[in-house]
Amino acid sequence: MYTVGIDLGATFVKMGLVDDKGKVCFRRKIETPSSLNKAFLIDAIINNIRDIIKVSGKKVSGVGIGVPGPVDSKKGIVHYFPNIKGWKEVPLKSILKKKLSLDLELDNDVNAITLGEFVFGAGKYCDNLVCITLGTGVGGGIIIDGKLYRGGSMAAGEIGHMPINEIGPKCNCGGIACLERYIGNRYILERAKNAFGGNITLETLTSLAKSGNKKAVAIWTDVAEKLAVALVGIVNLLNPDKIIIGGGVSKAGSLILNPLKRQIKARAMKDQAKHVKIVLAKLSADAGIIGASLLTHS
Amino acid sequence: MYTVGIDLGATFVKMGLVDDKGKVCFRRKIETPSSLNKAFLIDAIINNIRDIIKVSGKKVSGVGIGVPGPVDSKKGIVHYFPNIKGWKEVPLKSILKKKLSLDLELDNDVNAITLGEFVFGAGKYCDNLVCITLGTGVGGGIIIDGKLYRGGSMAAGEIGHMPINEIGPKCNCGGIACLERYIGNRYILERAKNAFGGNITLETLTSLAKSGNKKAVAIWTDVAEKLAVALVGIVNLLNPDKIIIGGGVSKAGSLILNPLKRQIKARAMKDQAKHVKIVLAKLSADAGIIGASLLTHS
Repeated sequence: MYTVGIDLGATFVKMGLVDDKGKVCFRRKIETPSSLNKAFLIDAIINNIRDIIKVSGKKVSGVGIGVPGPVDSKKGIVHYFPNIKGWKEVPLKSILKKKLSLDLELDNDVNAITLGEFVFGAGKYCDNLVCITLGTGVGGGIIIDGKLYRGGSMAAGEIGHMPINEIGPKCNCGGIACLERYIGNRYILERAKNAFGGNITLETLTSLAKSGNKKAVAIWTDVAEKLAVALVGIVNLLNPDKIIIGGGVSKAGSLILNPLKRQIKARAMKDQAKHVKIVLAKLSADAGIIGASLLTHS
Repeated sequence: MYTVGIDLGATFVKMGLVDDKGKVCFRRKIETPSSLNKAFLIDAIINNIRDIIKVSGKKVSGVGIGVPGPVDSKKGIVHYFPNIKGWKEVPLKSILKKKLSLDLELDNDVNAITLGEFVFGAGKYCDNLVCITLGTGVGGGIIIDGKLYRGGSMAAGEIGHMPINEIGPKCNCGGIACLERYIGNRYILERAKNAFGGNITLETLTSLAKSGNKKAVAIWTDVAEKLAVALVGIVNLLNPDKIIIGGGVSKAGSLILNPLKRQIKARAMKDQAKHVKIVLAKLSADAGIIGASLLTHS
């Protein structure tokens, strides 16, 4: 059985035909410059879905779409995209259904990635897990009793907006001392620039730390320790089997993972800390396509 | 249909026959002085269950027990009681089943209370809710998609041990800056004593605040604001329909509830804050009995 998975992002739309083992074939990629209007983008998506189906010659059972913003996944409505203009309360599911006679589901991209890791990645065989994506934003998805948990108004999973202090800097979301306000990649980069000068990238910061630079190691350790405060709360509250760390920033790998594990062991309750496994995500660049392809089964 | 609900506490065991509308009749109460040994207490519980059934003349379908400590509710084993000596890995369910041919379930007391509020109290008709008990400890129970959520190793719900700061005082659990370490009743009392002298009780602190004493109001407001930090995290993470505040300390009522609501509105994400209702628990002193009586149906 094959499904089309679509990872709608602010820079690219990545699409692929995914088989029932999570293997991606017949990829397509559409650029999404900020000038691209909504109707044009939707048409391009429809044409590419048709093209993938035609070229592959496979029987396709459905289409899943992960999108970069809050949605009503039951009704198939995009509420808005923080980083793409012109999308407000768009009934994307019904628009696409009119043109394609296929089963079709959408959800936010982090939920899709979480589903991907749960079925084919680092979360296999775990009924209760939390998946975190570290990048510009800090996102989260939750699997409870083997099912994606979406919350009372489909807005669950905002790990990046758990406060890690009573008092602290104001966050874009309106909150105070949110995790993302400390470890969203722009804030890590800000600290790196203060330490190493203006041209540094996060990749360089990671290289420096890996080669033993103490200032660089200290920045990653502090990122991990701040992440740990929120995760200790999650470990004690939800007692998950696994926490999966993904997203671009997670490329720092053991620089984050090791101090994170140390902090969970030191600060979380004994039983819960012993039970939980903290691991890196497995699906990497294809996570969005693979996860989205699973939405029609979830 | 009738069920026996048992609220096993460190001072009393409270028992009652509960009908299918959550009404408690035929109560029994056993004192549990610290000298009382385990075998004696278990015998007293068995005799009182038999007595309740005999005296009431009702057909009883099962017995539910809420206990003050971590359990394996599937196997029916008490791991230990922090405040009652002599209980360690006790197979309470199988011990009782041998003597009583009745359906029998046990769980920790906060899970039982959460179930009670969900079915008959402040959480009726809410599929996703969090129930918090404020007292010596700060406990929590979680209902997800209409079912009690127990976590990967049956240790979920430890809201009192979510950190609310990166750095802070050490908690009994081994953690740092846990919510309970700030608003467990002994810490509130400590602050009240510093402000008003050694003989004050929490009841007096509440009376003083209700009559307008600014120092007393400030203590309760600060308790609410600390609680809010953890709850903002829960609102953004779990997007619950409702948060129910119970336990002895919640008797401060609007002194806690009003600043708490203000803080959730100010700090949590808009959609999630708009969706969640923050309310006081409804079942009060009978919550433990009523909740326990529901364990055989959950």
